[in-house]
Amino acid sequence: MLTSTPGYAGRLLRLDMSKLRSRAEPWSKEWAGLFLGGRGLASRLLYKEVSPEDKPFSEGNKLYLMSGPICGTAMPLAAQMAVVSKSPATGIYGLAMVGGHFSPELKKAGYDGIVVEGRSEQPTYVVVDDDKVEFRDAGKYWGMPTDRTQEFMLRELGGYYKTACIGPAGENLVRFAAVTVGRRTASRCGLGSVMGWKRLKAIAVRGRGEVEVADRGKVERVAEKAKKIVDDAPITRNYFKEFGTSNDAIKCNKHGVLPTRNFQTGVFEGALDISGEAMKAKGYIKGKTGCYNCHLECGRLTVVDKGPYAGAVTEGPDYDTLFSLGSNCGNSNVESVIAADMLCDTLGLDTISTGVVVSFAMECFERGIWSLKDTDGIDLRFGNHEAIVKLIPMIAYRQGIGDMLAEGVKMAAGHLGKGAQRYAMHVKGLEIGGYDPRGSSGIGFSMALGSRGGCHHGQGYLIPQELTLASVDRYAVKGKGVLVKENGEERRACDSAVACKFARYGIGDLAEMLSAVTGETYGSDELHVIGERVNNVERAYNVREGIRRRDDYLPKRFLEEPMPDGPAKGRIIDNESLLEDFYAVAGWDSQGVPTRRKLEAIGLSDLYRELAALGIAE
Amino acid sequence: MLTSTPGYAGRLLRLDMSKLRSRAEPWSKEWAGLFLGGRGLASRLLYKEVSPEDKPFSEGNKLYLMSGPICGTAMPLAAQMAVVSKSPATGIYGLAMVGGHFSPELKKAGYDGIVVEGRSEQPTYVVVDDDKVEFRDAGKYWGMPTDRTQEFMLRELGGYYKTACIGPAGENLVRFAAVTVGRRTASRCGLGSVMGWKRLKAIAVRGRGEVEVADRGKVERVAEKAKKIVDDAPITRNYFKEFGTSNDAIKCNKHGVLPTRNFQTGVFEGALDISGEAMKAKGYIKGKTGCYNCHLECGRLTVVDKGPYAGAVTEGPDYDTLFSLGSNCGNSNVESVIAADMLCDTLGLDTISTGVVVSFAMECFERGIWSLKDTDGIDLRFGNHEAIVKLIPMIAYRQGIGDMLAEGVKMAAGHLGKGAQRYAMHVKGLEIGGYDPRGSSGIGFSMALGSRGGCHHGQGYLIPQELTLASVDRYAVKGKGVLVKENGEERRACDSAVACKFARYGIGDLAEMLSAVTGETYGSDELHVIGERVNNVERAYNVREGIRRRDDYLPKRFLEEPMPDGPAKGRIIDNESLLEDFYAVAGWDSQGVPTRRKLEAIGLSDLYRELAALGIAE
Repeated sequence: MLTSTPGYAGRLLRLDMSKLRSRAEPWSKEWAGLFLGGRGLASRLLYKEVSPEDKPFSEGNKLYLMSGPICGTAMPLAAQMAVVSKSPATGIYGLAMVGGHFSPELKKAGYDGIVVEGRSEQPTYVVVDDDKVEFRDAGKYWGMPTDRTQEFMLRELGGYYKTACIGPAGENLVRFAAVTVGRRTASRCGLGSVMGWKRLKAIAVRGRGEVEVADRGKVERVAEKAKKIVDDAPITRNYFKEFGTSNDAIKCNKHGVLPTRNFQTGVFEGALDISGEAMKAKGYIKGKTGCYNCHLECGRLTVVDKGPYAGAVTEGPDYDTLFSLGSNCGNSNVESVIAADMLCDTLGLDTISTGVVVSFAMECFERGIWSLKDTDGIDLRFGNHEAIVKLIPMIAYRQGIGDMLAEGVKMAAGHLGKGAQRYAMHVKGLEIGGYDPRGSSGIGFSMALGSRGGCHHGQGYLIPQELTLASVDRYAVKGKGVLVKENGEERRACDSAVACKFARYGIGDLAEMLSAVTGETYGSDELHVIGERVNNVERAYNVREGIRRRDDYLPKRFLEEPMPDGPAKGRIIDNESLLEDFYAVAGWDSQGVPTRRKLEAIGLSDLYRELAALGIAE
Repeated sequence: MLTSTPGYAGRLLRLDMSKLRSRAEPWSKEWAGLFLGGRGLASRLLYKEVSPEDKPFSEGNKLYLMSGPICGTAMPLAAQMAVVSKSPATGIYGLAMVGGHFSPELKKAGYDGIVVEGRSEQPTYVVVDDDKVEFRDAGKYWGMPTDRTQEFMLRELGGYYKTACIGPAGENLVRFAAVTVGRRTASRCGLGSVMGWKRLKAIAVRGRGEVEVADRGKVERVAEKAKKIVDDAPITRNYFKEFGTSNDAIKCNKHGVLPTRNFQTGVFEGALDISGEAMKAKGYIKGKTGCYNCHLECGRLTVVDKGPYAGAVTEGPDYDTLFSLGSNCGNSNVESVIAADMLCDTLGLDTISTGVVVSFAMECFERGIWSLKDTDGIDLRFGNHEAIVKLIPMIAYRQGIGDMLAEGVKMAAGHLGKGAQRYAMHVKGLEIGGYDPRGSSGIGFSMALGSRGGCHHGQGYLIPQELTLASVDRYAVKGKGVLVKENGEERRACDSAVACKFARYGIGDLAEMLSAVTGETYGSDELHVIGERVNNVERAYNVREGIRRRDDYLPKRFLEEPMPDGPAKGRIIDNESLLEDFYAVAGWDSQGVPTRRKLEAIGLSDLYRELAALGIAE
């Protein structure tokens, strides 16, 4: 295996789908220093290679699947992969992080990442066997759900490969289709439909090499220490080990931020019913599942063995799904949430966007924008779990009203008119995640300012601080920008390294891990600068696409409709103050464009020069 | 690996589920000579070890999973496994043959077969790794469909194992639950529920050894020849290679023997719609699948990619399923048949019995024995494909009317009363297969006289002669017994060797294959005697259970209701003549009990002595 530098394979694998040719190319070691790898490297490559002229569904758009320097080593919870492209949901920067076993296998095969370019004439899948790369006819897999695709492909290949694929939703260009990696999903931003447009059904990879590290003994010691940190952190010890993310339903409800009936309120009368505790009490949770070299195991092997949804088996639902297909659809039938989760996974859909799209349809129905005639006779009242389960395949296959809903809430509301836009809960086109910003302002920052649009993992991530540990004032806006900024930097450093967001090791620990693996010396400050750099690359990408202050607003509901019940009752969120607070600490101007001073300070003068030449930056 | 004799591992693996202990034991080489292995050996062991006192669901009943001498060698189409037990469907001899990859793997692990005994306290699965055998807690797999069970188990074990398991139907003791091997099923006789009763969720096996053969060069030559015979046989060449068994729908309809609306007629107006040709024309057939070392590949990778059943993926449906869940339910919606096939496979149900159970319910409904009130509001009119798909999980989970239907047509009709027995299409409790005996008397022999009850593979198998090649008079009864008897012997020799029923090599070829593998000299005549011996062991088993002439009757419909339409219009079948003809050539008395003369002539004096001591044989 080619490994020129500890921690790095030193090569990117470019797949030209138009010519069905591959090329392994070395990549700039300078960029490893500036962006680490993973999300950072992918973002920088996207900025360089995919311009405003390149539409999401065009030959010019590219899909990046990027591993990072600590992946495939002894370091725990370091199996993530950054999937990056121009998003068909938002038309701007698109990112989804995913775990599993693909990313370390890719490293072992001798690549730091894959870049998918162009578009194939016919459905195709790619088999990567160390240096050997083969394009094969995927005709027989086209139309298959993700579980069957991987099952039959593994059987054909012999079972030794790690696989990523799309389901019918990706093939049908649903704008919130996921890329599926084993049973995990790179779910946000509709990147599965980019793969579908390129007619790339799947990638299978096998690597026989090892990831070179600078100091094996040190790596082992640091890895052991990191494992212990993960074990001992209060959140993981008291909480994660038992339920993964699934008991957030109760916690969020207690705080009054559990999105309910399309974010109309933050308190759900059925919160207990859809909690991890309920699934456990009913005997559905049968075990834990995790990614490569993970002892935390956030996945829950969930099996419904009775009732009308018997036979549903998933590795979730995680909190994101419990809220989106549960409370946010007014649905307290947890079995239906599990079944809906399975459907989303097998059809290749982002569960968050799917749930928010369904809840949007339900609110339109309840408010009379849609009648039974419009909905193919489906009674879309909140809480009708049969309707939820019925809508999901219609979306994936674009049948009936599913066809319009497959465009996501922003575009669907545009088609619908009649004031539906008010019920489209998104920022920049991305359906928002499972926390009501009226009761958790850090989430408001994250959703308003996230480079990928309205996601709770969009900018920084203050959920532990605001909700789990309650160590900061969850309503305050002013002065919180700095926390969000710093957390966003840490997140981007992790996503670039690539470490899991659920690892509770701190940025200092990550620096130690990176130093042991690469032989370079990293410190917390440096990682913060790297994270800030990545954030500015992403923002620069978006402003080049036309994003400005006007786009950094949460849905009007959060700004104008006071929370009707619960602990956050009466509250709205002050979006103006939020932007002012964040732009100031981020070093962005009043329109949210990174300033010359900031870009030059963090080594992005080249980006400044381009933005200035375009008349964007001053 | 322990291999005392070429072709044989020389050991059986006994799994004591009560004590969670295993034992590898040598077995009588004398029996290899008398019964070969596979079905023959399993049948002889059942006779010896499971007595009339042992009910199907009792600690005394055992489950035999038997490979055979040519399995795991270079011989093609030799990956079958005989699964044998006392059947919960019939209370008598139960058998299901199944292909896949488990049987050769078992041989390579050093066992000719597995005997499952007793009953575990807790759901358990067993991992066989050459000599190492481990009983593990299957709590987390209990309740899972067969696809997920194998997927998660393989992931846990590392992907190198071959697996057999049951689905929810087996756990819930549905009397027609299957044992699933990969994606193939040992479907008939409800043997999955025996496994379920024993609380054995799954077996995983890995073998690192090789199967010893007497003459490697000869084996290779004979294997090549056998492959060529398979390739060149008219049936396989013209027919199987294209469609597997799936175009039998058109052939059987043409001959007027395609079971339609619960065997009311043999002509179905929607035959073309449910044919392999239709599935191909609609683009659903995406590829072929086969068992270990099989180049015939009877499985069809079938994917529905549009419409309300989009997402259904199976390796079929084969003809057995097209008739049972298609024409026999008056259902011409092939997409629903594919979806129903997938449900049966994943829930672990025999598709033949499931379809015949559903068609029974439909006839009861149409004739007013059942009303909408009785059927939980399900409109069970023939042709209602949504009702068919809805009933299947209800059966597997014993919900609503599914609970009664899970008992099979014989018992369900008994519960129902009101003349429902007339519409219960079974022999000895086993739902009958996909050919109307009024237009194919060989099938009548097979169903009436099959040791496992009403199956088209019950006694002999004259489908190629009567229907495909039309080389014998398909209506004649008198004089046909000898053909059925000889074919039944050949089938039992194949099932004991173990060779696939779709291999078109003849009994002489099989003899040559066996000779090359074992070093013993086999000829056609000897294999016929072995087959006859196995048949008489099976019959002796059944007569010891109380089976007599009165039990050898086809459903009254075929004896009393003339075929209403098509080429066989006006015909019934003469069951009396059929029995007289067969008993005479079989050497059975007028009650169908094997005679002393016959048993002694074929080396079964020991069985004769036991039957005589019991007052059964004279």
